[in-house]
Amino acid sequence: MVPWTGLSKPHVVIIGGGFGGLYAARALKRAPVTVTLLDRRNHHVFQPLLYQVATAALSPGDIASPIRWILRKQPNVDVLLAEAIGVDLARRAVILTDGEVAYDYLIVAAGATHAYFGHDEWRPLAPGLKSLEDALHIRRRVLLAFERAERESDAARRAALLTFVVIGGGPTGVEMAGALAEISRESLARNFRHFDPGSARIILLEGGPHLLTAFPESLRAFALADLRDLGVDVRLNSIVTGIAPGLVTIGADSIAAETVLWAAGVAASPLGRSLGVPLDRAGRVRVEPELTVPGHREVFVIGDLASLDDQDGRPLPGVAQVAIQMGQHAVKNILRARDRQPLQPFAYKNLGNMATIGRASAIADFGSFKLTGYLAWLAWLFVHLLNLIGFRNRLVVLVQWAWAYITYQRAIRLITGDRADT
Amino acid sequence: MVPWTGLSKPHVVIIGGGFGGLYAARALKRAPVTVTLLDRRNHHVFQPLLYQVATAALSPGDIASPIRWILRKQPNVDVLLAEAIGVDLARRAVILTDGEVAYDYLIVAAGATHAYFGHDEWRPLAPGLKSLEDALHIRRRVLLAFERAERESDAARRAALLTFVVIGGGPTGVEMAGALAEISRESLARNFRHFDPGSARIILLEGGPHLLTAFPESLRAFALADLRDLGVDVRLNSIVTGIAPGLVTIGADSIAAETVLWAAGVAASPLGRSLGVPLDRAGRVRVEPELTVPGHREVFVIGDLASLDDQDGRPLPGVAQVAIQMGQHAVKNILRARDRQPLQPFAYKNLGNMATIGRASAIADFGSFKLTGYLAWLAWLFVHLLNLIGFRNRLVVLVQWAWAYITYQRAIRLITGDRADT
Repeated sequence: MVPWTGLSKPHVVIIGGGFGGLYAARALKRAPVTVTLLDRRNHHVFQPLLYQVATAALSPGDIASPIRWILRKQPNVDVLLAEAIGVDLARRAVILTDGEVAYDYLIVAAGATHAYFGHDEWRPLAPGLKSLEDALHIRRRVLLAFERAERESDAARRAALLTFVVIGGGPTGVEMAGALAEISRESLARNFRHFDPGSARIILLEGGPHLLTAFPESLRAFALADLRDLGVDVRLNSIVTGIAPGLVTIGADSIAAETVLWAAGVAASPLGRSLGVPLDRAGRVRVEPELTVPGHREVFVIGDLASLDDQDGRPLPGVAQVAIQMGQHAVKNILRARDRQPLQPFAYKNLGNMATIGRASAIADFGSFKLTGYLAWLAWLFVHLLNLIGFRNRLVVLVQWAWAYITYQRAIRLITGDRADT
Repeated sequence: MVPWTGLSKPHVVIIGGGFGGLYAARALKRAPVTVTLLDRRNHHVFQPLLYQVATAALSPGDIASPIRWILRKQPNVDVLLAEAIGVDLARRAVILTDGEVAYDYLIVAAGATHAYFGHDEWRPLAPGLKSLEDALHIRRRVLLAFERAERESDAARRAALLTFVVIGGGPTGVEMAGALAEISRESLARNFRHFDPGSARIILLEGGPHLLTAFPESLRAFALADLRDLGVDVRLNSIVTGIAPGLVTIGADSIAAETVLWAAGVAASPLGRSLGVPLDRAGRVRVEPELTVPGHREVFVIGDLASLDDQDGRPLPGVAQVAIQMGQHAVKNILRARDRQPLQPFAYKNLGNMATIGRASAIADFGSFKLTGYLAWLAWLFVHLLNLIGFRNRLVVLVQWAWAYITYQRAIRLITGDRADT
């Protein structure tokens, strides 16, 4: 290991190369510090488009970039492929699976994972979507279900193979359900000989009374109507009580479905627990308004791992914008701390909220004005292209979207990886 | 299972959706037959560009297309995701892992796999390149070697991590070695802080006295000089005698290398053996000049699985053009057999032979005229783009190549899959 201690400049360690960690590293570009960014993956993933990888519209390489490539022009940043398993606050060291790294300032941006509300046995039956591997796994399961339907002569078993249940009516669940409807109704047309892919059932289950609770009522209503137009069977107030192979149970009802996808809950990274500070119910670290950990003004927790209320007392949502702004704010506070100035509280500036519903339709809430349908979809397209990292990714994604828009096709319909593991 | 027997039209079964099988299916477009194409993968891979996936230049989706999508406008073709494990010539049935399919005519186009010349213990140490999974596995190993070098402080261990040995001086080996040289010299520049990626050693080992034996002497000499200019350490007459973790042995010499790639030998698919007919040394089926199996004029073997000499008595090479022409010829003979006309012998028409060496350099042999360097590379580019399947793949590959040419970057530098398995 390269020795990290004894450096003359303060050493800022960042755990995680997601939105929070990456924008923190970028904000340190001209700062007189040395930076080490750790991630257990070598790439940053543009999570808002992960569902498009899962639904065969984009390749993994289109929405991901190597972290060290993104930061190659920042000579003060070291990028290390390493897995952090704990933080020793007293010794100011990050514990890795294979060593440790000392810090003067620490930014923990380790993100979140899926939560199955105490039903961890559902995990293999209803995969969630957080990483590229998750997306490829979901893509494989969805495409294999259609392949198996082609070889299935029993009508009931075929119907179960052609039933897709998405659990959770947030943006990811809505986007997945819309994309699945598009795949079955449009992209797969004429591809099969022994059944009509358009006969596939897409069922979206939401435990509460509304989809997309983060949006105002008028936009929610639009999204619900649009999803139903696409042929998605949206069931509100439907709390899943059981998942077994081929069967989803909702109280007294059940659905025979071979493919079940999980978009219902997130839990904070287990790294939060290792800090030994108060957590909220989802395992997130209750940070001070300055984003620091209680009693440790040199340790910042940001993004999905941080629990903090906004100015109106509502918890900040787990979205990219919050993570990015927190990363930039943590850096400002680190530079203030170094200059022995008081730290400043974080104030979230909501730049807007969007979700796509399917082909050429979306909702967008920019506070003072709201968009629905085609215009919202154009805004969604523009914002996402602009925020993708790297010119090449923007160009390739634009080409793929243009092609998909014109042809109604999904290009990346590859079943790769071990077929036995589905 | 859907019953395949008792059809009024002759039933042609094709095993394998590679070049041979796919072009056979296409040639049957207007034929009064029903066709079933079986493959254990759902996609056709454009194998000549597989090394670009392995070396992070292209995404899997750029060079692969779902077989049933390619054939969606041919209503007489059924595509089945199924694995053939044998053929019962007497009963005229293909045995699957999970059922069987009866045929009137059979085209076996099951291709080839890696051969380790009796050293199967080398397989996990020196992966070969035949499928998308192989390419992603090689990509992961190459990129991980650089990541590990960044964290390695021992000079000797770091040197071994930065030594890449490619075994086999055919087109794949040459292309891999050239691409690895480019990655280390150009694409990774400024990405690491603790070593210079340009210091990586790329060693190409060839057992015989020449690289690229299929090419005329002048082109071979050009390729050799060009590879050495790129910084590849080409060692001819170097027969590998041992591969152990971190060590390649060539007689009395040895090379400390953490990454070893296999491009040395192919063996025919084990399906050939199940036919119970004479095979050659590499396990390929010795077909009649009409491409049929001795004694079975309804069974054709084509592509890498077929062993046949050309008009001059030289064995036909295992390249895409041979497979494609054989697929089309097998279909002609099936239609002649149905019309009770005599079958015709296969005559290979060599359309040319190309190999790239690295950025903007290639060799091309069109018989009467030969090209080297930039012009050959443009020809290579044009021919490969033209032969890719699907407009979208052509467009995306063109965009990726243009970007890579301008920036010297490799865009798809993702380490995905299980990191433990390397």
